Amino acid sequence: MTTPPETGPHGLTLEQQAALGSGADFWTTERVGGVPSIVLTDGPHGVRRQAGATDHLGLSASLPATCFPPAVGLAQSWDPELVGRVGSALGAEARALGVDVLLGPGINIKRDPRGGRNFEYFSEDPLLTGTLGAAWVRGLQDNGVGASLKHFAANNAEHDRMRSSSDVDPRTLREIYLRAFQRVVRTSRPWTVMCSYNRINGVYASENHWLLTTVLRHEWGFEGVVVSDWGAVADRPAAVAAGLDLQMPGDGGASDAALVAAVRDGSCPVGAVAASASRVADLAARAERSRTRAHGAGLEESRAQEHHALAREVAARCVVLLKNDGDLLPLAPGGSVAVIGEFAAEPRYQGGGSSHVNPTRLDVPLDEIRALAGADAVTFSQGHTTAAATEEEVRELRGEAVRAAGAADTAVVFLGLAAHQESEGFDRDHIDLPAEQLALLAAVTGAQPRTVVVLSHGGVVALAPVADLAPALLDGALLGQAGGGAIADVLFGRVNPSGRLGETVPLRLQDTPAYLNFPGENSAVLYGEGLYVGYRWYDARETEVAFPFGHGLSYTEFAYSDLRLEQGADGITAHLTVTNTGGRAGREVVQFYVSKPGSRVSRAPRELKGFTSVALEPGQGERVSVLLAREDLAYWEVRADRWIVEGGEYTVSAGASSRDLRVSAPVEVEGDELRLPLTLDSTLGEVMADPRAAAILAEHLPAPQGDDAGQAMGVDMARMMESIPLGRIAALGQADLASLQALVDGINGEG
Amino acid sequence: MTTPPETGPHGLTLEQQAALGSGADFWTTERVGGVPSIVLTDGPHGVRRQAGATDHLGLSASLPATCFPPAVGLAQSWDPELVGRVGSALGAEARALGVDVLLGPGINIKRDPRGGRNFEYFSEDPLLTGTLGAAWVRGLQDNGVGASLKHFAANNAEHDRMRSSSDVDPRTLREIYLRAFQRVVRTSRPWTVMCSYNRINGVYASENHWLLTTVLRHEWGFEGVVVSDWGAVADRPAAVAAGLDLQMPGDGGASDAALVAAVRDGSCPVGAVAASASRVADLAARAERSRTRAHGAGLEESRAQEHHALAREVAARCVVLLKNDGDLLPLAPGGSVAVIGEFAAEPRYQGGGSSHVNPTRLDVPLDEIRALAGADAVTFSQGHTTAAATEEEVRELRGEAVRAAGAADTAVVFLGLAAHQESEGFDRDHIDLPAEQLALLAAVTGAQPRTVVVLSHGGVVALAPVADLAPALLDGALLGQAGGGAIADVLFGRVNPSGRLGETVPLRLQDTPAYLNFPGENSAVLYGEGLYVGYRWYDARETEVAFPFGHGLSYTEFAYSDLRLEQGADGITAHLTVTNTGGRAGREVVQFYVSKPGSRVSRAPRELKGFTSVALEPGQGERVSVLLAREDLAYWEVRADRWIVEGGEYTVSAGASSRDLRVSAPVEVEGDELRLPLTLDSTLGEVMADPRAAAILAEHLPAPQGDDAGQAMGVDMARMMESIPLGRIAALGQADLASLQALVDGINGEG
Repeated sequence: MTTPPETGPHGLTLEQQAALGSGADFWTTERVGGVPSIVLTDGPHGVRRQAGATDHLGLSASLPATCFPPAVGLAQSWDPELVGRVGSALGAEARALGVDVLLGPGINIKRDPRGGRNFEYFSEDPLLTGTLGAAWVRGLQDNGVGASLKHFAANNAEHDRMRSSSDVDPRTLREIYLRAFQRVVRTSRPWTVMCSYNRINGVYASENHWLLTTVLRHEWGFEGVVVSDWGAVADRPAAVAAGLDLQMPGDGGASDAALVAAVRDGSCPVGAVAASASRVADLAARAERSRTRAHGAGLEESRAQEHHALAREVAARCVVLLKNDGDLLPLAPGGSVAVIGEFAAEPRYQGGGSSHVNPTRLDVPLDEIRALAGADAVTFSQGHTTAAATEEEVRELRGEAVRAAGAADTAVVFLGLAAHQESEGFDRDHIDLPAEQLALLAAVTGAQPRTVVVLSHGGVVALAPVADLAPALLDGALLGQAGGGAIADVLFGRVNPSGRLGETVPLRLQDTPAYLNFPGENSAVLYGEGLYVGYRWYDARETEVAFPFGHGLSYTEFAYSDLRLEQGADGITAHLTVTNTGGRAGREVVQFYVSKPGSRVSRAPRELKGFTSVALEPGQGERVSVLLAREDLAYWEVRADRWIVEGGEYTVSAGASSRDLRVSAPVEVEGDELRLPLTLDSTLGEVMADPRAAAILAEHLPAPQGDDAGQAMGVDMARMMESIPLGRIAALGQADLASLQALVDGINGEG
Repeated sequence: MTTPPETGPHGLTLEQQAALGSGADFWTTERVGGVPSIVLTDGPHGVRRQAGATDHLGLSASLPATCFPPAVGLAQSWDPELVGRVGSALGAEARALGVDVLLGPGINIKRDPRGGRNFEYFSEDPLLTGTLGAAWVRGLQDNGVGASLKHFAANNAEHDRMRSSSDVDPRTLREIYLRAFQRVVRTSRPWTVMCSYNRINGVYASENHWLLTTVLRHEWGFEGVVVSDWGAVADRPAAVAAGLDLQMPGDGGASDAALVAAVRDGSCPVGAVAASASRVADLAARAERSRTRAHGAGLEESRAQEHHALAREVAARCVVLLKNDGDLLPLAPGGSVAVIGEFAAEPRYQGGGSSHVNPTRLDVPLDEIRALAGADAVTFSQGHTTAAATEEEVRELRGEAVRAAGAADTAVVFLGLAAHQESEGFDRDHIDLPAEQLALLAAVTGAQPRTVVVLSHGGVVALAPVADLAPALLDGALLGQAGGGAIADVLFGRVNPSGRLGETVPLRLQDTPAYLNFPGENSAVLYGEGLYVGYRWYDARETEVAFPFGHGLSYTEFAYSDLRLEQGADGITAHLTVTNTGGRAGREVVQFYVSKPGSRVSRAPRELKGFTSVALEPGQGERVSVLLAREDLAYWEVRADRWIVEGGEYTVSAGASSRDLRVSAPVEVEGDELRLPLTLDSTLGEVMADPRAAAILAEHLPAPQGDDAGQAMGVDMARMMESIPLGRIAALGQADLASLQALVDGINGEG
């Protein structure tokens, strides 16, 4: 039994401190003592500010706000500057709607294409994810609204999400699943981090001291508030002891009472409660200081219009031109166009769940195409339905579309997944487009070879069957409320596409890294593919894919030349010249991949370590320089529990995708020192690798068996001996442990 | 400080008990009190009885003994009766050579084709492995010689084998890596089990109480001695406490003293030492009782001759006819044959390491071919060399072979891996045949389309390049000392081949299950592929392979018909008719695979659950009946920590390989009861799945959110709610924990 002090930080009693650490209701924190209440609300691609009084599960309709492209679309810009502008606009809207903390960005790594929440995340790659996430946080917070970096961590499936343990080895956790969080925390200092629902290696994220305190605060220097995902706290005292500050939503004071009781019976340290309360109070004070007069004044129509225009600009930058045989795109003005598909008239532009935004307005692709092509030049046929239909209805819809396609100069077919086919809350069990859509496309391309497909979907879909049929393919993923205009802009060449895939599109679901380990069973998911997520897997296994990571075409062409590499203290600076060799102005996303041939650890054949983009007029060339940061070159050294840059020769390649590398060059990198002391568990091979140690060993141990013995057993004795731990020589009766230990001490002492 | 009793079992003092638990030298146990010393020595495919006094590492030359096909070859017979005869012969030789315990069989699962010791193991499948291992143990022990079932457990790589931890989830351990051990222990009661070098989930096998005591003794009822692999004990007191009985080899008493000290200071229970000593004493007594007058009298020449004939019969049964385009085989008498390749004259017939046998004699394939074809009809060209050679030498060897091939009616090319390319002690880093052998084959087939390839190798090699070139392919793996005669028998049709692959031959190493998780790093191996080992992986991922598991052709053909299935208490009995529809007598291995469509757990598409073989004259048909044992249908239910047969419809398919299924039928199986009580951790979905529980829940909880809320968020609310644990409703502020617990108790109480 401990007796906690009567009052703690900010003059708050223990009860008040506990009250500060849980919500007042679904979206606000408690006003306690002098600490003001603040508002947190869903994001991230728009502000979901609930209308009227909050209902008991926070599910009622929300106020209108700009729906920017969700992360799946936004990531395809590969442009942190653009993402920063979106963050900034979100900050302005949050202020206008009276929101202090916007719950985003979501920066989990897309481990499996079936993950139901993938549309809220950026990429399968931690560098791309972290860079874009950091830009988003900067843009938002520069406007006085706090971010909530989520979902921390290894929350990569919806199935059984409130219990499931993500069982991940330490290197994979560090290099893949935590790396983007580390980057954003270190470079953009989010006000809050949101711990996820799941367990990590058996321990709930909300109760994971290693995650929330050792790594997040001690290693990365995070000073903000750790907030729970809504309903993620199973045991409040355990969570607070681990480093959780704020349980959301409120539970009517039940967990506050449990926390106070735990402090009084000594099972939760009073210091943890005080520290958490202090952090929540600091957050509230900071939020209050950041409020302007516009706070909660409502979203003005002029601001809404301005943001809609931004949303259209951004969306156009996110469209990926996957395929363009015969330069079918852009469409020439004056031709007739048969627009086909339900999504042309009823666009699919965001995902379902907590991030769902009530848009200020909505661009319909069909209308926008009519606006650019002229209403007379455009026909529309629904072609299929995502609702239930009879065979006859399906046949009729398809027949009409085929007739329209045949009668026009070009067909533009909108395909994709309907909202009910993917959403927060469940994972998909396949990645196929609906069969009736593929049948429609086959029928249309039969009648009209000049067919363009436009795709809308939150998660990756299998595209080989589509690419086999259609000569041109635009992938919008999800583009937000202005996607319709953006698609029209790209179709007609008002925007030259420059988007790139943030995820590999595999040939088959069966080829994907986690195919047999997703979504797990018995509330556990083995991350059996380890480091080999996304392109790292397909490259390592030399597996063919439909479209590789980083892929995206342009209406013009670019040449790469004169790669030069410099090693400095900060990393490798890569310089190269990119030239627009085609006939149109365009933007090229230049990607840098790094390989370490003969590495001492298992590594992907190449990893993205830098990227930039450059806009060029026809014929224009530009020298670009990108720092491949030394810290990004490091691997997680499990034996030393820290990041290590391995010394030696690396290869840097630059190109237009992970499988379209145009130039490459070697570079020598100085390694970090890694000296691990020898122990009795060190093998003879490890001892012999150090010439000094080998010499000492040779003096003290009997000579190894000769070739005769090896020959009698048909083996290479020297090679067999290499894996014997030094201490085990005692168990083999060849030396005693004490002298072996003395030998080890002697070797280590000479270091 | 505890005071151990002065004397224990057999009237032995503590010091004597400790002495009994470690070797006297490399191959014998201590003679202590009245307990005799016994001899253990390497196997398993022959007796490696060291000549003269044992040297200090047990590595000197051994006495001649029959070298039967190593497990890799023997398994290809798919015939437990035949394997039992080999065990029996080994027992007779062990007795003659004065050996009490023969160290085998090795029954580890072949997880990765690179595993250096795969040649000592049977298969990638636990049923095939366990069935053959059990037959081997029975055959051996019926002759009064004890087996040592090894290497227990999850010892699937040579790399860092004395430290590496095999990190395996519980279901995979049970269903794949322990299942064959369970079968052999339960059905054949081996005198000893040998614990392996490696760690399992972080704990050394030798110190693993769960493995050696809970599972092996308590669950499986093992009553024999657990002996360490030679040098596998890192900490003798910890090992004895975990259930190890006998540390081998002797270490001059050092660990005996450590054990006595540990008992005296209370860190090792005296009962554990006594129990181990008692088991070793019982083993020694049993061994002594089993000795006959022939014990140690030496291997008689007549016995050696008889066993050589057996070795030839067995070897011929182990040859797999992988491919036979245009019925090139068997070779007609009278034609001329160009025999090509080093291994025709210097056969590769066993692997390197502790299992290496000094054979009583050695059949050379070239001589045996000459004996059957007539010496005048046969030419020999070396064709290539496995030693270092100049380019000119290589060209010359190849040229000579090509000339000989062109001049003959048929070429028989021997290809494979040399002893130095694979062995105990290291893993391979690729599975390719040497490039010069493929170049030789290409050159030979260019000159002689009628080319047969004969393969010798311990581990799987990539065969697609070979199959692309040669119309006929015989795979002997390793066939022991009489393999030369066996190959000749099959080539000329004296034996109609009936061997089947015990391992899948993949198209590429990159396609293999553990490709990126082998051999691990930092002394840990993640078994990331889980249950999906061997054909289970290729089938689940629908990956093309070079030759599937269970594949093997015949010189005749077989038809399958009239599959009938009966469910009984013991399992499913499958009856079907196999008919020899070709023109030669032959033997067919009939394989039964079971599927569970829509299983509640992750499962391979099909698993081998029974097999038999039947010898048939041309035109003859026979009804075969095989029990697919109920215990083999069970999966390991992690939540209940036991085997469970899932109820419902299964599909049984029978055929000639895992990918040549000829007949199949459904069968209804009654499931084991699996009733897991509800807890606060049970999800709403789990509660709702039980109609009774759902009704109680509906009475007590607020009605779930309606469609309106879901629509506002674009989600299916009911589906989102399913994954919420009951107790978490409190954290969401919708109920208090106490009433939720009462609700759970109420539901469970009504059961």
